[in-house]
Parts: sequence; structure tokens; C-alpha cells
Amino acid sequence: MSKVVAILTGGGDCPGLNAVIRGVVRSAVLQKGWRILGIEDGFDGLVDGPRYRELDLASVRGILPRGGTILGTSNRGNPFQYPREIDGKMALVDVSDEVLRNFRQMGADVLIAVGGDGTLKIARRLNDLGLPVVGVPKTIDNDLRGTDVTFGYNTAVGIVTEALDRLHSTAESHSRVMVVEVMGRDAGWIALESGIAGSADVILIPEIPFDIEKVCLAIRRRNESGSRFSIVVVAEGAFPAGGGKVTQLRAEQNLGVERLGGIGHFVASEIGACLPMETRVVVLGHVQRGGTPSPFDRILSSRFGVKAVELIDREQYGMMVALKGRSVVAVDIASAVGSLNLVDPEGDLLKTAEALGIMMGR
Amino acid sequence: MSKVVAILTGGGDCPGLNAVIRGVVRSAVLQKGWRILGIEDGFDGLVDGPRYRELDLASVRGILPRGGTILGTSNRGNPFQYPREIDGKMALVDVSDEVLRNFRQMGADVLIAVGGDGTLKIARRLNDLGLPVVGVPKTIDNDLRGTDVTFGYNTAVGIVTEALDRLHSTAESHSRVMVVEVMGRDAGWIALESGIAGSADVILIPEIPFDIEKVCLAIRRRNESGSRFSIVVVAEGAFPAGGGKVTQLRAEQNLGVERLGGIGHFVASEIGACLPMETRVVVLGHVQRGGTPSPFDRILSSRFGVKAVELIDREQYGMMVALKGRSVVAVDIASAVGSLNLVDPEGDLLKTAEALGIMMGR
Amino acid sequence: MSKVVAILTGGGDCPGLNAVIRGVVRSAVLQKGWRILGIEDGFDGLVDGPRYRELDLASVRGILPRGGTILGTSNRGNPFQYPREIDGKMALVDVSDEVLRNFRQMGADVLIAVGGDGTLKIARRLNDLGLPVVGVPKTIDNDLRGTDVTFGYNTAVGIVTEALDRLHSTAESHSRVMVVEVMGRDAGWIALESGIAGSADVILIPEIPFDIEKVCLAIRRRNESGSRFSIVVVAEGAFPAGGGKVTQLRAEQNLGVERLGGIGHFVASEIGACLPMETRVVVLGHVQRGGTPSPFDRILSSRFGVKAVELIDREQYGMMVALKGRSVVAVDIASAVGSLNLVDPEGDLLKTAEALGIMMGR
Amino acid sequence: MSKVVAILTGGGDCPGLNAVIRGVVRSAVLQKGWRILGIEDGFDGLVDGPRYRELDLASVRGILPRGGTILGTSNRGNPFQYPREIDGKMALVDVSDEVLRNFRQMGADVLIAVGGDGTLKIARRLNDLGLPVVGVPKTIDNDLRGTDVTFGYNTAVGIVTEALDRLHSTAESHSRVMVVEVMGRDAGWIALESGIAGSADVILIPEIPFDIEKVCLAIRRRNESGSRFSIVVVAEGAFPAGGGKVTQLRAEQNLGVERLGGIGHFVASEIGACLPMETRVVVLGHVQRGGTPSPFDRILSSRFGVKAVELIDREQYGMMVALKGRSVVAVDIASAVGSLNLVDPEGDLLKTAEALGIMMGR
Repeated sequence: MSKVVAILTGGGDCPGLNAVIRGVVRSAVLQKGWRILGIEDGFDGLVDGPRYRELDLASVRGILPRGGTILGTSNRGNPFQYPREIDGKMALVDVSDEVLRNFRQMGADVLIAVGGDGTLKIARRLNDLGLPVVGVPKTIDNDLRGTDVTFGYNTAVGIVTEALDRLHSTAESHSRVMVVEVMGRDAGWIALESGIAGSADVILIPEIPFDIEKVCLAIRRRNESGSRFSIVVVAEGAFPAGGGKVTQLRAEQNLGVERLGGIGHFVASEIGACLPMETRVVVLGHVQRGGTPSPFDRILSSRFGVKAVELIDREQYGMMVALKGRSVVAVDIASAVGSLNLVDPEGDLLKTAEALGIMMGR
Repeated sequence: MSKVVAILTGGGDCPGLNAVIRGVVRSAVLQKGWRILGIEDGFDGLVDGPRYRELDLASVRGILPRGGTILGTSNRGNPFQYPREIDGKMALVDVSDEVLRNFRQMGADVLIAVGGDGTLKIARRLNDLGLPVVGVPKTIDNDLRGTDVTFGYNTAVGIVTEALDRLHSTAESHSRVMVVEVMGRDAGWIALESGIAGSADVILIPEIPFDIEKVCLAIRRRNESGSRFSIVVVAEGAFPAGGGKVTQLRAEQNLGVERLGGIGHFVASEIGACLPMETRVVVLGHVQRGGTPSPFDRILSSRFGVKAVELIDREQYGMMVALKGRSVVAVDIASAVGSLNLVDPEGDLLKTAEALGIMMGR
Repeated sequence: MSKVVAILTGGGDCPGLNAVIRGVVRSAVLQKGWRILGIEDGFDGLVDGPRYRELDLASVRGILPRGGTILGTSNRGNPFQYPREIDGKMALVDVSDEVLRNFRQMGADVLIAVGGDGTLKIARRLNDLGLPVVGVPKTIDNDLRGTDVTFGYNTAVGIVTEALDRLHSTAESHSRVMVVEVMGRDAGWIALESGIAGSADVILIPEIPFDIEKVCLAIRRRNESGSRFSIVVVAEGAFPAGGGKVTQLRAEQNLGVERLGGIGHFVASEIGACLPMETRVVVLGHVQRGGTPSPFDRILSSRFGVKAVELIDREQYGMMVALKGRSVVAVDIASAVGSLNLVDPEGDLLKTAEALGIMMGR
Repeated sequence: MSKVVAILTGGGDCPGLNAVIRGVVRSAVLQKGWRILGIEDGFDGLVDGPRYRELDLASVRGILPRGGTILGTSNRGNPFQYPREIDGKMALVDVSDEVLRNFRQMGADVLIAVGGDGTLKIARRLNDLGLPVVGVPKTIDNDLRGTDVTFGYNTAVGIVTEALDRLHSTAESHSRVMVVEVMGRDAGWIALESGIAGSADVILIPEIPFDIEKVCLAIRRRNESGSRFSIVVVAEGAFPAGGGKVTQLRAEQNLGVERLGGIGHFVASEIGACLPMETRVVVLGHVQRGGTPSPFDRILSSRFGVKAVELIDREQYGMMVALKGRSVVAVDIASAVGSLNLVDPEGDLLKTAEALGIMMGR
């Protein structure tokens, strides 16, 4: 039975979004003969307007290797808490009825929502309200439950690893401590995997509050063994055990971590205080989440897109596509949201890092 | 209990070999305090000599991102069929007793054999003869059973995808058919995954004998729909259904496929014969198996190295490390050798390719 | 005074073509307010049709980093020798009057012809016939006179160097001679520069007929000094001094070099005959001329495009933009065509290669 | 006549240093039969010790593609103002006599000093004191006079351009202003060239004090024309015309620019204040100066190394190698130091940027 499928992309940029869109469009058009409507700027485009355009084969030509999303995205657009001006003041209001009305007006049968924890939570609530939804999980940080891995993450690890490769030579030539702050607010996956791949000496992740004195000790021992430089990878969400100094620092200066220049600067300044070595900080920032997806992410995204169409064909709504082992499967959206996929401090990967001699902050 | 561990790398080059060696040395030295002996040039170094050197932390410094193997490798060296000159003639003889003797002379307790199907088969027989062995699977083609994936494969897919990205612009500017021959003598994994990632229009793999007329038809239809160029990815082991023309061609000219310039040239010439389009062939060759490993392969190789040391610690000999889902586990070497991990013509990944509109030769 | 500028791209693919088009369109539109007409498929689009489309700012958005040419190209289209069916037979006829008529019909004032030796020769003749032309030189091989360097060449050197980096590890692990055939039919620039950058041991270029025995001797000496592998870079136009064996081989087998699999295969087979080493051949082919341009080429192409508009503003027709030192200047098209920019066998760069210990075939 | 040549690398890290060392060693050993002594950690190694080691062919094997310097470097080590503890206090003293004594003790005839403005100034003074010196210019920023370009610069432009490519997709998906701070304390070369190559919308360089209101106006106009995002590249040494706000800000908060998080953060906060757009800052930092050199830099560095040996052979001391057009020549060190090679605000390259529609802050 022919269907009209709407698709939107929500949340932060992530390499592979266009590949998902392309996978949906190509398989829906070529295999099913369905129509696809691309909603612009995430849920914003469902609230105002609706704003959307038809996506045919020509619309998705050449987009597989391109970063970003041809549909645009929005971080703000939670229709259950949407910013509206009421009586001259901004308030957060529930506009989900407008979303449902606009969706029906578009003539769409089902919505594919590509996004992270926030987007999927909204998708799930809309599904409960009677708007059939299929989810596609997305998070650069790899912290979503319900899937082994999400697209974009492999690309991010690649970008960070390449930066670590470059920083190695400088650190070594100058006998420096190089502190590299990478993404990962809640989960340390990017720091851990790129740290292993990029031959880091110390990796600090949110899951293991770090002991800065032990960090300094590890670097000192490295120096004594003849390696006069060290690479320290710090996830942006890492924090010191006890948190004493940072807390104190913030209080004294009335500054948030952001104001301090991030945890990377804190770690560098602490190391500089306990060791007679030059330290330098690099904050990789948004470079980590843009640009052409890695082959792994292009394939995973394409598979996710094709699988989403298959779920719609079977009317498995409220479900989300996910990678399990080597297969792409369907899981309940509910199983993916709410809690996070964190690094297990006693798990296989972390033990491997420590067996390789990487200091994990403890 | 302290151990002396010998390690060798066998078979063709594969990005990640050095990372395995480094993983073994670092975890064995730092965690166990063991000695590691690096055997040179694969099994050759166990037959002649023995030729080996001690590997300490300094020996493996900086090798994580480097392609190749610091130990060298050998394709010839099967000790059960070793080339020896006897009475002025070359013969293949069983020199496994020399291997056992040399191994004992080195004072080693256990051998880590890093290699593909051939190397692992030898390793298994040596293990049966009383030389304790732990295997680490390696194949650029990803055709080994017993593990979800092998290191080097992800790097190869990356190199081919990058080449496909480059070839796209040329094919498009010139309205050409570009035939790209990639590695994969028995299994089409590299062709399939890089073809999906690199937006190929046709992918021909050994698992699906191709129908050249259907291939031409697919390209003609593409032209008619306005896409005036096509990218055809051919695994080196792909062959036509029936094999009629190739067989005939070979007979007429008394030429092997090698002499014809490989299957890529055959496919290009067949397409050139049935369609009024310029065709060009690119044979990527050895570029696919050298150079710096991708982050994914660096991590997988490091994990394999660490796990091999763990197996030795538990004296789980005759076993091989393997990736299953997200975990690195131990499997019997026997389960990995003998038959190959081929692409399932009715499997998930292949169906995804066809859903995306890729013509798979059938 | 407002102008209407037509632009076409001719000859083989070359990274930077889109950047030239973009440079022309942006500076012409933003600075001069002119109209730009993009002719499709090189001179073909001026003969048949004319086929062209208006290029505005939106048409060139996002094309700077993309390989290929949004206008398409044609290798066939020499309007002075254009293939036409006459009395049922194909003949090459002069259709330049049609070109002039079509050009006038488009309402264009001047033509920017982006291309190599062939395209620029045609452009020059059309200019002599009264069609005002400005040339932009293009050749991946860097063999055009009149400019220090052409765009696309830096990208090609980068691609070859990356391949040489990858091949090094494999050659070294296997103690092999790796022969890499690269572009350069008449000039050895790509072979020479990428050979220096990629640490080749032997470089064979068209400008220096090579002595295969000396090549073998150099590789033998390398082996004796402990380097058990060698990288040989061969320009596709390189040939042996005297040419004896190749000529003889061709005669015996009635085969052209093409049939032999190119000069790379010849060199590998000769080395394999004189040394007891495994040899392997890699023919990089079209990978060298596609894909995203290097930053150097993006800048040079953009400068060329902007300069072409400036020449038109000054009505300096019959001229070509060119790089001289750090400046982009105008030179007579006549000075660029007819003879080639070859590597000077006694020049600075070649002497550097030999000082580094690279064997140049002599 | 046989010579003993000492070589040191000074100043910040720069891709190509190892290629220079290799070029010197290979040409000196292979062509001249000279001995080469590698001084460790820049001038520090000539003051304390001397610390040095012999460099033979084996020492430089495989280092061509590697970042950093195998000799180490030092930023501190100006022998004319060397930090020494005198009577329990640190003082800067002239230890040049120790340098001369140590140099003689090494038995060296001549010194090759590879470094930037600081290193070359020292080299020149030592040459005047009777220690024969040949200079090799190095600066990632390309701000050295006397040579068309220095090695490392092309690599840096490549790294920044790749980052800009990645940031484009994110900026576009989110309708953001992305401010990218790049190296260039005094000269805007990196910002200008990578900005052109990476399709920046605004480029701010030290040579043109910027008018933030005009910057905001340019971005607003871009928005109005339908491009909802902008990329702003800022050299770290850029500053606002008048400097009013920055100066005021620093005074109020008693903060240096460093403390403010650099000029990038200032520009982003100013844009955020005048436009209703999200802004993000990326500070690329040390990633720009490490890692494998580009092919261009590998070739230039190799040529510089070979040329330095040639100058020594001719006893042209007090001279520095330099690139002029396509030739590597010798110039007086004096001509290179003291004043800087800045971007000409009315020059060819800058006019090209503006013709392309790039806003240059004025």
C-alpha cells in the first residue's frame, strides 16, 4: 500500500544525516514507489508552517558523502515546550496539537525522526498521541542506549585520532604535555576510543572522576622512563574526584567551567602546577561533528535509512532502528531514551586501555 | 608465572599488524612482566635460524600508526611444505620438527601467530604437535570465519571509498563508465561495503556470478534517467554467470584472466561492447593493503594483542582471539579455518545494497 | 561596460575546474554585474545547439571543494576537425563557422576557455577568427608552457604521494620491488615531484630514457646496503634508452605498450628478470585526476578565475592567465601552446633528486 | 675537501624539519662523503654539553613523512640571553663563548641552523663571531622575508582548510556563525589562504585592523541573500580598528587577550551581540603545526636540505637557502631577519579574496 512518509532531522550536526535521508528516499522511491516529504529545520518545520518539500531521487543525488543535513536542524524545537511569545513574554508552551494538525495537513502517513535522546523522546510522545513514528538514533557521542553504535561517532573518532597523530610530533619535539579536550559531555566513548587509537598516555572520562595527583604521577613516571612528552585526552564532561579544586576555583572566581575555558584548561593548569613541564591545550570543538562521514558511517546511515522504510512497510511504529552485532534491527524507542550508554569502568574496552599502559585517571 | 612469548606475523601486508605487536608487548611487559621474542619474516624465521629479536617497550614505540610489520612476513613459509633443495632439485618438505627444535632453542613457552587462513592452519597443526599457540586472525578481505571482522579490512574499505569519491567527479564530467577492480578473491566484502559507501551503481562480487547483459541494461536505464555516468565496482574474484565468454576468450587467446588484465578489464570491455559509452578501468591493487591503519583497525588490533596475552595467561592454547558484537573473545582456531566467511547473497547487507538501487550483477 | 561572458571547460578532468568557474562567476557578478553563460560539454556545446545555461551566484554555491566540472567536458570537440557524418561516412570537418554563429546567437561578448594545449590552440584560432577569447591553462601533468604551474597538478602529486606512503609499508614488509606507474605522457613532473615527496628509490621519466640495467644495479646495491625493498615510480611516458627490448617485444608479440599493460608492467618484468626479487605493479590511473582539489589548487584556480575576469575588463583578448612566481599575470596564449614544459634533465629539481640518492634511470 | 657539518633545529614545531635533516644527511653522505652531527634540542644542546649524535643514512631512514624533529628543539635557547642561575637568582647571560668552545670541541666545521626569525638572528651573530653558519628558514606562519615561502606553511593551510570544510556543513545545518581562530600572530597568510581555499565569508588578519560593525553588516547581508550561515576566519593576531572595546574589556577585567580566550572569542561575542544568530568558536591551535608534511613541504624541505649542503660545499657562509619562483637560491641571512613578510593589504592575493566576495574586515 502506497504511503507518504515525512522525515526530519533534529539535534546537533552529525556526519551521516544526509546518508540516512538518501537511504530512506532511494529505497522508498525505488522499492516501494512511496512519496517522501522532507520537513525543514527539525520539529520547527512542523510547528511553523508546516515547512517541507518533496524529496525525489534527484534531491538526494550526490549527498551521500556530504556532511550536515539538507533538511536543516533545530536544537530548540521541542513541541512540548516550545518558545512562544505570550502577552509580550517568552514562555514554553505545548504546541503538540499544532504539530499533529500540520502533519495531517501535509498528508503524511508516518514520520521518520532522525535524532538523539531529545528528538527520540519527542518522537515517542508524538507516537503515543497517534502520530505514527519510526526513529533513527543519532549521537556523535555514542551515548544512546538500544544500539551498539550510532552513525557519526566513527567519523568523530577518526577526526580526533588524526589530530592526536599531529599533536604527537609537536609534543615530542618540545617535550610538552599536550592536553586535548574532546567531545563527550556524559560519556567518554570518543575520548576512550580515539585515545587508544591515537596513542594517548592519559585519558580522562566522565565515568571515572579523575585524581589529578595520580595523573601527575603517571606523567612524571613517563618522564623518568625517558619519554619526555605526554598526550592527555580529556572528555569535556570529565571532572576531578571530589571536585574540590574546580568547585573552589569556580566559587572564588564566580566562574562556570565554560568560563574557565573548559575542563581541558583546568587539567593543563593543574599539571603545569605539579610538574615542571610546558603544557598546551587544544580544544577540538565543532570540527569533530562536521564534514564528510567515514565509510563506516556512510554504510551504517544507509542501512538505518533502508531499515526505517522496512519498518514502515511492516507498520512497526514506535520503533527505532538499531545496530546489534552485524545486524540492523528494530527496538522499542522507549528502550533507547531516558538513560545513557556509558563506558563501563570495569568493562572490556577500559581494561584494554589500562593493559596498554594508558592512565585512566584512577 | 613468568612466560616467554614468541610472536610472528604471516601472510600478506595488512594495516594493524604493528598495532597487534605493540598491544602484545605493552600488555605483556607492563602487566605481566613477561619477555617477548619477535620472530622475523613469519615462519621462515622459525625454520632458518631461528631469527628473532627481543621486543621491549622501546621496540614498539611509535609503531601504532604505521603500516606494515616491524617483524617482516613471508608468503612462502609453510613449514609443512617448505621449499628445500634436495639433490639439486627444489622440493616441498615437512620441516616442522626443525620449527619445534628452533622454538625450544629460543626458550619460548608459547607462540602468537598473527595471520590469515594459511598461517592459522599451520599454527593449529603446530599446536597439535605440542607447540602451544594462540592465534590472531588477519585478512584484509574479511573472509575469515570465527570473527565478526578482522583488522585491516576497515582501512581497505576506507582507501577504496576515497578512490571512488575521486573517480565520481571524473566519471560524471566525462559521461563515462568507470570500472574499479578491488581486492576480494573469494569474498566480496570490500567491493560491497566500499561500493555502498562510495555510491557505486553496480557491484560485482564472487558470491554472485554476474550477468553482463543485465549489467549493461542497468547502466542503459541509468543513462535514460539522466545520469550519464556509472561506477562499477568489481571484486577481483568476480566472474560471469556461465562464464561462457570469459572461458571462450581465454581458450581463443590461450590467456588466463591475469593476462587479460584482470576481471576489471573484462567487464569494461564487455560494457564497451554493448553500450556506446567510454569505459575506463582502475585496478587499485596493493594501495589497498598498506599504510596507516584506520582508528577502527588500530583499536581492534590493540584489543586483539591484549586479548592474546590474556589467553596465554589463562593457558587457553589452540584458541584464537575474535570480535563478537562489541566484545573480543576466544574461539577455537579450528572454527576459523578451512571454510570462508562469504557475503550472503540473501543477507541483510546485500538486500540493503539492492534497496538503495545498486545493481548486484543479477 | 556590462558584458556577457561565456565559459567552457575542455579536455580531461582536473581538480580545480569548478573553482575556476566559481571564481569567474563570483567576481564577474559581484564586482562587475556581468552575466555569465556556462557552455555545456566543452566545444561540443558550441557546435550543437548551442547548449548553455546562465550561471548565477546560486549555481556556483558549494562547488569550490568539488572535483569535476559542473559544465561537463569533451575530449572530441575540436571544431576545426569535428566528426560529422557525410554521405553515410564519418569525416572530420571544419565547423568553426557554426561555432561563431552559435556564439553570436548566445549573445555573448567573450569566451573564457579553460583547458589544456588542445583547448587553448582552438581558443587561439577562434580568437584570430574574431571571437574574443581569454584562456585559462589546465593540465594535470603540468606540461604547459607559459605558466609556472597549472591547477590540478598539486592535487595529483598529493594523491600519488599518499599512495607511495601506503605502498612503502607493504614493500618493506615483503622485501619487494613495487613499481608504480603514474600519469605523465610527455613530462615527468608528477613522477618526479611525488617520487621525491614519497621517498621513491628510482624515478623514470619521459625526459630521460632509462637504462634498465642501471636500474637493476641500483636496486641490487640498495639490497646489499640492507634495504631489502625498493619503490620505483614510472611516468606512463617513460621509455628505455635505445628502446631495444620494448620495440623487440612489441614486434614479436605484435603488441602496443597499452597491450603490454603499460610501461609499469614492462619495468616490473625487466626487474623481475634481472633480480631475484618479487615485483608488483600498481597503475594509479584515473584516481589521480579526480576528486576534491588541494588547498593550493583551490587558491590557484580561484585566482585564475578572478584574473580572467580582470583581463576581460581590460579587453586583453587572446591572452591567457598564468602564474609567475607569486603573481598571476597575463601571457599571450601563443606562448603557451605548441611546445611543452618538460623536466630539465640538468635542472635544479632533478639534481636535487639525484643528490637525495634517487636513481633517475641514467 | 671533507667536512664535518653540525645541524640543529630551533623554534616551534613545523612539518618538514625532518625532511630538511634527511636532505642534508643524504646529500652530504652520498654525494660528499661528509660526516653530519645532529645537535639535540636546538641551541640548548650547544650550550650544555655539547649534546649531539652522529647522523648517518640509517638515522634518517623513514623520517621524510614524519612530523616533528628527531633532534628536538628549544624555544628558550638564545645563547646571547641564556637563562642561568647566578647567586641563587635566574639571569639572562651571554654564553656565546661556551657555544663556540663546544662547537669546536665537537670537531665541526660548519653549522646548519634550521629555524625562524629568532634562530636565524642567533645564527647570524654566531657567524659574525667566526662560527661558519648556513641558515634554513622555517616558519609555519610564512612571515619570514627573503624567501617566497617557507616549509610547514603549506601543511598548515591544508589542515585549516580541511577543518573549514568540516565546519561548513555544521554551520549550514544550524544556521550559525562559526568563528575559526587560526595561527598568525603578525601575518595573516594562513588565515587568508586557508580562508580562500575553505570558502570563508569573512577573513580578519593582523595587517587590516577590522571594523566589527562592517563585519556584522556583511553577515547580515549574507543572511538577507538567503545564506543563513557564515564562516569567519580570524588570525590570532587580528585586532579591531581603534581597538576600543577590546582595550576597554581588558582594562575592566584586568585580562589579557589570552585570558579572554583569544581574539576568536572576542569576535564571536561581538557578532553575537549585534546579530540574532548563534555563534560558535573553534581555536585550531597546535593541530596546525604538527604531523606529516604535505607533499609540497616535503619537496621544499628536501630541496632546502640539499641546497644547504651545496652552500657549504661552496663555503657560502652567512647565507640562507630560499625559494624564489621555482628555484632554490642563496640569500644573505641578514636580508631575512628583523622585519617580517606581511600580507600586502593592496596586493594581488587580497584583491582576489575581495573579488571573490570575501569580507576582509574593512
